[in-house]
Amino acid sequence: MADAAACAARVERFRSLMEERGYDAAILRNNPDLRWLTGAECTFDDEVAHTAFITRDGLWLHTDSRYFGTFVDRLGENTPWKLDMEIVDPASWAAERVSKTRSRVVAIEDTMDLAFFDALGVELAKGSVACLLPRMHGDIASLRIVKDSEEIELMRHAQTITDAAFEHICGFIKPGVTEMEIKVELENYMFQHGADSLAFGTIIASGPNGANPHAQPGERKVQKGDMIVMDYGAGYHDYRSDMTRTVCLGEPTEEQRKVYEIVRGVNEACAKAAVPGCKGKDIHNLAVRLITEAGYGDYFKHGLGHGVGLEIHEKPFFGRNYDREIPVGAVITDEPGIYLPGNFGVRLEDFGVMGEDGYHPFTQSSHELRVIPC
Amino acid sequence: MADAAACAARVERFRSLMEERGYDAAILRNNPDLRWLTGAECTFDDEVAHTAFITRDGLWLHTDSRYFGTFVDRLGENTPWKLDMEIVDPASWAAERVSKTRSRVVAIEDTMDLAFFDALGVELAKGSVACLLPRMHGDIASLRIVKDSEEIELMRHAQTITDAAFEHICGFIKPGVTEMEIKVELENYMFQHGADSLAFGTIIASGPNGANPHAQPGERKVQKGDMIVMDYGAGYHDYRSDMTRTVCLGEPTEEQRKVYEIVRGVNEACAKAAVPGCKGKDIHNLAVRLITEAGYGDYFKHGLGHGVGLEIHEKPFFGRNYDREIPVGAVITDEPGIYLPGNFGVRLEDFGVMGEDGYHPFTQSSHELRVIPC
Repeated sequence: MADAAACAARVERFRSLMEERGYDAAILRNNPDLRWLTGAECTFDDEVAHTAFITRDGLWLHTDSRYFGTFVDRLGENTPWKLDMEIVDPASWAAERVSKTRSRVVAIEDTMDLAFFDALGVELAKGSVACLLPRMHGDIASLRIVKDSEEIELMRHAQTITDAAFEHICGFIKPGVTEMEIKVELENYMFQHGADSLAFGTIIASGPNGANPHAQPGERKVQKGDMIVMDYGAGYHDYRSDMTRTVCLGEPTEEQRKVYEIVRGVNEACAKAAVPGCKGKDIHNLAVRLITEAGYGDYFKHGLGHGVGLEIHEKPFFGRNYDREIPVGAVITDEPGIYLPGNFGVRLEDFGVMGEDGYHPFTQSSHELRVIPC
Repeated sequence: MADAAACAARVERFRSLMEERGYDAAILRNNPDLRWLTGAECTFDDEVAHTAFITRDGLWLHTDSRYFGTFVDRLGENTPWKLDMEIVDPASWAAERVSKTRSRVVAIEDTMDLAFFDALGVELAKGSVACLLPRMHGDIASLRIVKDSEEIELMRHAQTITDAAFEHICGFIKPGVTEMEIKVELENYMFQHGADSLAFGTIIASGPNGANPHAQPGERKVQKGDMIVMDYGAGYHDYRSDMTRTVCLGEPTEEQRKVYEIVRGVNEACAKAAVPGCKGKDIHNLAVRLITEAGYGDYFKHGLGHGVGLEIHEKPFFGRNYDREIPVGAVITDEPGIYLPGNFGVRLEDFGVMGEDGYHPFTQSSHELRVIPC
């Protein structure tokens, strides 16, 4: 059941923003935002099937029959949400609420797709309803940046499963097993040890595949001399963990060892530099500078880190364009990498929380290069 | 590697539509559409990280460094796609191509989110570029309705894995195992027998949970007398399968048997009624009528069926509002259900292809109520 007090506080934070901006109401369709505001655990999947309408004193939620009973169970009897599953086009449902509440300034999130936005315009016009539809630019995602203690505990727990899975998989890997077999073994272990979902599609990228940061696991058999990039995480009550470790099957070459140690040094330097109030882009740029100074500047092109929570990639970012500050309570990854096309890749990723005194990774797995004997 | 001839034919179909509508170009961001046009297998994940720009004689694709190498591998040397991973905002990238190609009528899909759409407008204005941005309303999804023989074979193969997993899981289920344990065993089996992904989040809903059509598997232990709804599928080269079977743990009650046989009769009547050129809503309405006549009209509220392909829910639909015809070559589900809140649910789902002579399920698992001895 939803934690009523935590969710009430979240709704209150959003209503303060509404008040500040002069919004009469908001129409929300983005599942992670709805999960955060309602607290309905293990209810949302990938479908955009739900619409919330929020005013300063009312909370409405529209869904369909496939989800209705689950919402009833999750929200409990005393929920402030007025839930319905009326068989009606969601845009028409939303327009009707705009009309009935006589709302004139109705905020929407810019995650909304054009199909819904266009349909909403048509429905409002049908009723000759005049209203403004100011866009929010991820404002609820911004509210979600600072996690409460329950959210942090869920992610810390998800990471303990993820760390344990790393130990397990190191005992499983040997020459001849495929990337796909490693993936299945790893995910299986997480499910058998408490994960209730996967944080995202597991990446197992061996040998030259490791040079593609988002490679999908395939039928390639790992062999002696491979670096193997493993980027994965557990899901727990809709919250996620995220970790990457790169292991070497057999003794590394001098170059493999050298690249690994550069990446490790960058990871640790960035973790140390990340303090409350630092700008996201400054930490990213530090990683770029260090990798460039080490001679590999052409081989690190992605962002250094991203927020994690109900989404695997959410605000804030350690990224070249993120010039806002990272506040206390943000949960974010630190994941430098070096990718040598046709040869191998290395990435070392922790994730953790920004505390008053600096960045604290949840990740407990060692930074030492793990050499798997063979 | 992408099947160059099949993909060239798909691009040609889209260009015919562009010609018909008078589009100079199109900007596309929807992953399933891009997967279909490029043929890049096992490359796309959930991130909206790629942008295509298509004119009558050019094909451009923008991605980022995380995916670039994988695209290079998948598209091959002779690809007509001009691929780049320039570090630039995708909206700015797209606006530059509009400007350089002097395109004036640039179609977009209404799956596009407002954030990208707004950014595109800003970038076009910056360059004082005048262009129209007509919305397409799922027109590429409409082109994707009719599958080619390779697509059909991939889904038929995915279903053989799904059918085999059903036989396996019936031997695994016994009183005391949890929904989550059933889910893990089922998914594991599919991965070990050739699935390279899951078609969607597996639904295992036992006893009263079965009355929530999209329940997520949890810690409930199945027990004697439970009906257990299992809705799942394998992914294979980005294509999907989809099947639901409801089994009974121990002998069913009279009501359980009765409800099951009603659902089964509706499934089979609808499969028989589905012939090329039938309207989607007519088949859905047949299901509603039959369930209502059987006295359970209040307990079936979702659509009867949906297309399956690169997405788990795509066009066409057996649904109350789908008044278009179902053509030969469409792949679609047939999944009536009855859901009795607080008690149990039953759904029976096949998926298959519309042939010249009628609907042919890929699904081979029996329609007989499977009673698991205990």
